[in-house]
Amino acid sequence: MQRNWFLGDLLDQLFERPGKKRGKDDKRSISELCEALLSAEGEVSGFALASTILDRYQTLDDPEKLDFFAYLNDQLELDADLLSETARHYAEYRSVDLYKKLSEAAEPKRQELLRRLNQPSGATQELVATRVDLLRFLKSNPELKRTDVDFVHLLRSWFNRGFLVLKQISWDTPARVLDKIVAHEAVHQIHDLDDLRRRLFPPDRRCFAFFHPSMPDEPLIFVEVALTTEIPNAIDVLLSEVREPIEPEQATIAAFYSISNCQRGLTGISFGNLLIKQVVTELSRELPGLDTFVTLSPIPGVNRWLAGETGHPEHGHAAEAVLAGTAPPQDVRAMAARYLLLAKREDGMPLDPVARFHLGNGAELHELHAGADPSQNGRSQSGGAMVNYLYDLKKTERNHEEFVAHATIETSRSVRAASTAVLAARPEENPA
Amino acid sequence: MQRNWFLGDLLDQLFERPGKKRGKDDKRSISELCEALLSAEGEVSGFALASTILDRYQTLDDPEKLDFFAYLNDQLELDADLLSETARHYAEYRSVDLYKKLSEAAEPKRQELLRRLNQPSGATQELVATRVDLLRFLKSNPELKRTDVDFVHLLRSWFNRGFLVLKQISWDTPARVLDKIVAHEAVHQIHDLDDLRRRLFPPDRRCFAFFHPSMPDEPLIFVEVALTTEIPNAIDVLLSEVREPIEPEQATIAAFYSISNCQRGLTGISFGNLLIKQVVTELSRELPGLDTFVTLSPIPGVNRWLAGETGHPEHGHAAEAVLAGTAPPQDVRAMAARYLLLAKREDGMPLDPVARFHLGNGAELHELHAGADPSQNGRSQSGGAMVNYLYDLKKTERNHEEFVAHATIETSRSVRAASTAVLAARPEENPA
Amino acid sequence: MQRNWFLGDLLDQLFERPGKKRGKDDKRSISELCEALLSAEGEVSGFALASTILDRYQTLDDPEKLDFFAYLNDQLELDADLLSETARHYAEYRSVDLYKKLSEAAEPKRQELLRRLNQPSGATQELVATRVDLLRFLKSNPELKRTDVDFVHLLRSWFNRGFLVLKQISWDTPARVLDKIVAHEAVHQIHDLDDLRRRLFPPDRRCFAFFHPSMPDEPLIFVEVALTTEIPNAIDVLLSEVREPIEPEQATIAAFYSISNCQRGLTGISFGNLLIKQVVTELSRELPGLDTFVTLSPIPGVNRWLAGETGHPEHGHAAEAVLAGTAPPQDVRAMAARYLLLAKREDGMPLDPVARFHLGNGAELHELHAGADPSQNGRSQSGGAMVNYLYDLKKTERNHEEFVAHATIETSRSVRAASTAVLAARPEENPA
Amino acid sequence: MQRNWFLGDLLDQLFERPGKKRGKDDKRSISELCEALLSAEGEVSGFALASTILDRYQTLDDPEKLDFFAYLNDQLELDADLLSETARHYAEYRSVDLYKKLSEAAEPKRQELLRRLNQPSGATQELVATRVDLLRFLKSNPELKRTDVDFVHLLRSWFNRGFLVLKQISWDTPARVLDKIVAHEAVHQIHDLDDLRRRLFPPDRRCFAFFHPSMPDEPLIFVEVALTTEIPNAIDVLLSEVREPIEPEQATIAAFYSISNCQRGLTGISFGNLLIKQVVTELSRELPGLDTFVTLSPIPGVNRWLAGETGHPEHGHAAEAVLAGTAPPQDVRAMAARYLLLAKREDGMPLDPVARFHLGNGAELHELHAGADPSQNGRSQSGGAMVNYLYDLKKTERNHEEFVAHATIETSRSVRAASTAVLAARPEENPA
Repeated sequence: MQRNWFLGDLLDQLFERPGKKRGKDDKRSISELCEALLSAEGEVSGFALASTILDRYQTLDDPEKLDFFAYLNDQLELDADLLSETARHYAEYRSVDLYKKLSEAAEPKRQELLRRLNQPSGATQELVATRVDLLRFLKSNPELKRTDVDFVHLLRSWFNRGFLVLKQISWDTPARVLDKIVAHEAVHQIHDLDDLRRRLFPPDRRCFAFFHPSMPDEPLIFVEVALTTEIPNAIDVLLSEVREPIEPEQATIAAFYSISNCQRGLTGISFGNLLIKQVVTELSRELPGLDTFVTLSPIPGVNRWLAGETGHPEHGHAAEAVLAGTAPPQDVRAMAARYLLLAKREDGMPLDPVARFHLGNGAELHELHAGADPSQNGRSQSGGAMVNYLYDLKKTERNHEEFVAHATIETSRSVRAASTAVLAARPEENPA
Repeated sequence: MQRNWFLGDLLDQLFERPGKKRGKDDKRSISELCEALLSAEGEVSGFALASTILDRYQTLDDPEKLDFFAYLNDQLELDADLLSETARHYAEYRSVDLYKKLSEAAEPKRQELLRRLNQPSGATQELVATRVDLLRFLKSNPELKRTDVDFVHLLRSWFNRGFLVLKQISWDTPARVLDKIVAHEAVHQIHDLDDLRRRLFPPDRRCFAFFHPSMPDEPLIFVEVALTTEIPNAIDVLLSEVREPIEPEQATIAAFYSISNCQRGLTGISFGNLLIKQVVTELSRELPGLDTFVTLSPIPGVNRWLAGETGHPEHGHAAEAVLAGTAPPQDVRAMAARYLLLAKREDGMPLDPVARFHLGNGAELHELHAGADPSQNGRSQSGGAMVNYLYDLKKTERNHEEFVAHATIETSRSVRAASTAVLAARPEENPA
Repeated sequence: MQRNWFLGDLLDQLFERPGKKRGKDDKRSISELCEALLSAEGEVSGFALASTILDRYQTLDDPEKLDFFAYLNDQLELDADLLSETARHYAEYRSVDLYKKLSEAAEPKRQELLRRLNQPSGATQELVATRVDLLRFLKSNPELKRTDVDFVHLLRSWFNRGFLVLKQISWDTPARVLDKIVAHEAVHQIHDLDDLRRRLFPPDRRCFAFFHPSMPDEPLIFVEVALTTEIPNAIDVLLSEVREPIEPEQATIAAFYSISNCQRGLTGISFGNLLIKQVVTELSRELPGLDTFVTLSPIPGVNRWLAGETGHPEHGHAAEAVLAGTAPPQDVRAMAARYLLLAKREDGMPLDPVARFHLGNGAELHELHAGADPSQNGRSQSGGAMVNYLYDLKKTERNHEEFVAHATIETSRSVRAASTAVLAARPEENPA
Repeated sequence: MQRNWFLGDLLDQLFERPGKKRGKDDKRSISELCEALLSAEGEVSGFALASTILDRYQTLDDPEKLDFFAYLNDQLELDADLLSETARHYAEYRSVDLYKKLSEAAEPKRQELLRRLNQPSGATQELVATRVDLLRFLKSNPELKRTDVDFVHLLRSWFNRGFLVLKQISWDTPARVLDKIVAHEAVHQIHDLDDLRRRLFPPDRRCFAFFHPSMPDEPLIFVEVALTTEIPNAIDVLLSEVREPIEPEQATIAAFYSISNCQRGLTGISFGNLLIKQVVTELSRELPGLDTFVTLSPIPGVNRWLAGETGHPEHGHAAEAVLAGTAPPQDVRAMAARYLLLAKREDGMPLDPVARFHLGNGAELHELHAGADPSQNGRSQSGGAMVNYLYDLKKTERNHEEFVAHATIETSRSVRAASTAVLAARPEENPA
């Protein structure tokens, strides 16, 4: 409790940038500025130069940005011949000096440039935003992926788990941060702050996010949790405006009903697994009465998959019926179960991305619910079906290993039964 | 916890390690644990495994630690043949896929291991401490320098300037942090907290340090500043117990009289240049009346150099006299000036490490003072002489460039004159 | 900057009340509990007893609350005979012992009760809420005003200016506090948080509030400020959704366009004067370019007053025309000026409460604007007219004294001219 | 300033006083300034006037201060005749208006003056310091006690328990606050910060203090606690430099071994009872393994009392022996027990002030230890004896009531036995 005094404003200054627009009068081009930053000038005036470059970048239009990335990609490339040669020497002699040279040769100059650009306050956030641009260009300029490899390399180091901080998001959180939650909710849309209030204010709701000290206004990823006494079988039950909240101490179940990434610029740097684990730990500490941690998750790919399964004799008429929205609940569950258990990618992993995420974390398939998400989006994705993944911390590690090694999906009896349930007869087969 | 929530305790949890000793019952060896951390198990249970390894490391004795570093050095080495080959291919084809492979091949597994070890709260600090051990072993095990190259690579990324935070250290700072200041003062010893009070409590004294958000109790480097109306010519004037402090608003000069690194484990990751620059900025903002920023610095290598200069005709008897403590003040200054201006390393840079630091930052040689440090240490290092380096922010960049490119030392007229002053006649030459 | 470490969570605990409902099982009535609190039991178990009483109060219905106040009013009344007698003795002997007795006799027991009730965390806020009930009952139970006198006495002591804290309210403020701003805005309604964003988010808007350390979620009073380059002549200009904000450094004028009390329970304890003064000081410090501090204020009583002035020959047809909404702008201004300058209470003070507030603070009548508040409320109160009061800190003290002593209203030439302007001729008198 | 805004720096500004010396050029005397503060001028410029007065007070010498207090005492006295008359009327008519008048008449103007003086930041602390002066003058000017009655009245209201904040004092506390702990330790002297470290740094030591939000650097009262596994029987065991600390979780006993008031200016406003209660609550929450809360307390008055008991036949030779330092331990305990149980004030309460404090809080006499405080002070006060008072929260209320009503001292069998133990025979009665 005493500890945090110093941290109070430890980071304040990270976010003050003295003058807004720096180096306006520097006539050099952005690549010349980058060269300067990488030179001796950069050693003594790196802070100012980096600020100038970051500000200059803001003023670029798309073609100019593309030029800038091409510069990083081509001019600040590593010397592969030198690297190959140095590695060969090193392989022979294993000397420390050669290792140093190898280490230098193995890193393209753009990495050092990015590190030097990261000197001013707020720079990390700007570099993450820069990568959003880069990702945008990748489609039409796939060769820039080389530069993206280096971005990812550095960002993984900077956003190392040891530097992330889990924070509860609540109604005591500054509005500036809450705005980001509203903006980035990816699963069940939040319309505005007054809508968000329903998910933060009641005593039986929780929200947690990871933050990085250098970007304290910017959640990286967040998860929304409902404290309940029953495993939730429909999203509306959780988000209803009229429900009566329970006292947190009465809850036995923590239901994770939404998990959203906030930073497109951190695509490929994964936090979700860690977030869920840590929130489970945090909630267990606060509320010892909790004994079950489940999700209520979408099944985004069922209908897309079903569209390719129509006419398949195994499913009878069920695929068509689910797609048409006319299937009885047990058939919706059956087809969802088949999708989750049987639909695979080429590498043998489940086709469903949400399933891959939770099963990869070591969770297990626990229960399926038809009609659980009646929103337009829910119906078109999965005929309204949702699924509970269960996090049993005693089993996650083994589950994860089985899943990674053999693509084994730990599945409850109920879901397994659903997948093999007798489907409803085709209507026309019904005796008139 | 919610209440003063935001930056307030943003980082608290970084420093709570749930159970002190984790994974005590895990029977695997530390290298087996490391293999596990690098495997699939590490992906889902990395946090716990990393904690176990860090705790296990604490229990190792020196030979076991050496084994551990040898394991890192040899078993987690990169595959130089593969790297060479991949680089060769890449040089030929420049494909993104090859670049990815190259990027992976170029990084030894120990880097990934260190990043995964950095997951638990407090891990960063433990890894920095681990490097202190490594540095200790380097002398007798120079081959471990390869591993140290990777440590440095990661630490430079983690302790990137953008992540550091400048904090004022004052009498409002927690005693826990002040203890570190007492312990790490490297220039003018501080005996205890009551001694430190003299450097922090008076209104005309300042102290600033860089911190890293993951190690909030641990200053990385700090500088002590005296606000004065005259450029200080002796250390005792600054540290005197009986002096009358001035109001900060009266001060025109900020004198940096001590700068100390606190983290041996961060040797080679330089913060000093940045610290001085930022403190100058900070103080200028707080006290617009300040117009001069100087140091009062030791000249650690004079006497060592003079010992090799005795008998040199250029110096007459002065070298011997300074070493004997019998030289008149002007000769002490003269010899110090010659040392600073003329004594060079092989690469043409000044022999004096403090001079290299400040001149490398773009400061200039401003004034020399005989009898400025009458302590035992001061007399044996430099015959009691000290020097002011002047930071003129309008000139630091140019000075730095000249210094780096041509080893040019920007020098005041006064110091230049001192270096060429007529030395005192040899005593025996005096007419009886 | 360092100072606030300790305060960080200094007050956290003030707001944690261990168990929510305390003393549930205590069978005593609330008045018996109060007697116990005032007795020896209260000395050792005051904290618990006070909690029990405060919780019990929450469960009372209106008749029970009335009983409780009657108990305070009658049973915990002072002994006037004893007081009279003691005062008489004291007048004669002036001894310290008699003064002590007098001091005790002069205070009704309910004051000590309220002080003891104020022991638990959060109690202050609950006592303020209790006074809201009391004020509600006063109308039908005017004798309870005696108890209210004591409430006011204590609250003035507890909410002494020295204990209040000025805080900026911004988009970095917790949503919980922002909710209170939305709820309590009394002048220009705020619809919801997204509406509030327009008043807090732009760089040229400010909001400040006073807080009491014991009620950190509860603003006591707040003022909204627009930073502009011209004295605003209409509210819509300030609240427009489409305007382009200016940089704060460009502003020369700070316009206070809304000031609202938040705590009905603190009625009669005035903070507004202090708030404006301190905000002027704060803004001057932050933005030295500001040279003018004005309000844009409503004139709530014009139309009510005009209703009694219709037919008065002095005003020609203007009173009717303003009330009918058909008056030309100059007549709206003329009638507003006459109202502000001439309409008086029995004690000679202006009839308009907003005028009394600002003129009492030492401000002066600066300018009148017809059509400045086109809202339903604005038109029905004042025919849409608004007024600028100017705070010229060099003159506020003298203005205040003149106003208090002689009801003198410092008035600009423009407003004075408006009050004597020739009114528009009656329409029917126009030559056809 | 906005960033970590909320509680973070909620109170910062309380302690910034814009210009250090205010109103220097105001030529009025301090009493004229006070008159102005009480007048209309005070309503609009109260903040500035109060600052001027507080600064002026700092410049007064003792005779001038005495004049100032005489002014408060005589000129700002209440009108006893008016009060008597008003009370008489009120007794007759009980009207609200008369009650208001009575309420006003009952309060001397100096109370309002003190409240208005309390407006500027930091004023509370200065007023508390002013009372230190007043207390100093009381001895020679007992008539000033009237003014002191009003000081106490206000301070009790301002330092109401609801406004106090319990904070742990630890090695993470700012040195500025730790200095106050060193300075105010009243029981077992602390020499300097390095000495204090022994009481704060080890994991089995705790220190808690009450603070007032307006004086965040100033602890009001603090208590030092040792976490142990046995009830401590000597102070050296607790303060030893060489002991091995235990893990807090192992502790079953919390021993309060020192409690000290820090603010002479708050003499007569009692916090100790509340502090102990709240620390017991706090520690119970943190460490559920604690089951016993005791003190290790001095017995300051034994020897003074024994000096009057020499020759008393009941005690045989024991009184003399204890005073001479030659008594065997059981006799030291016996005499201490007799003192605590039998030595009374005129009002029947124990003579010993520490006993009155703890027994008044509802604690019980638990155990006596000879040779427990071998310091000079300990030996001269009590022949080295110390005592444990036991706080059994289930019994404190009843104990308190019995103690208050009947001066009953709840006593353990052991202490009772000690009081009646057979004393050592007089040496000369020993058979040779």
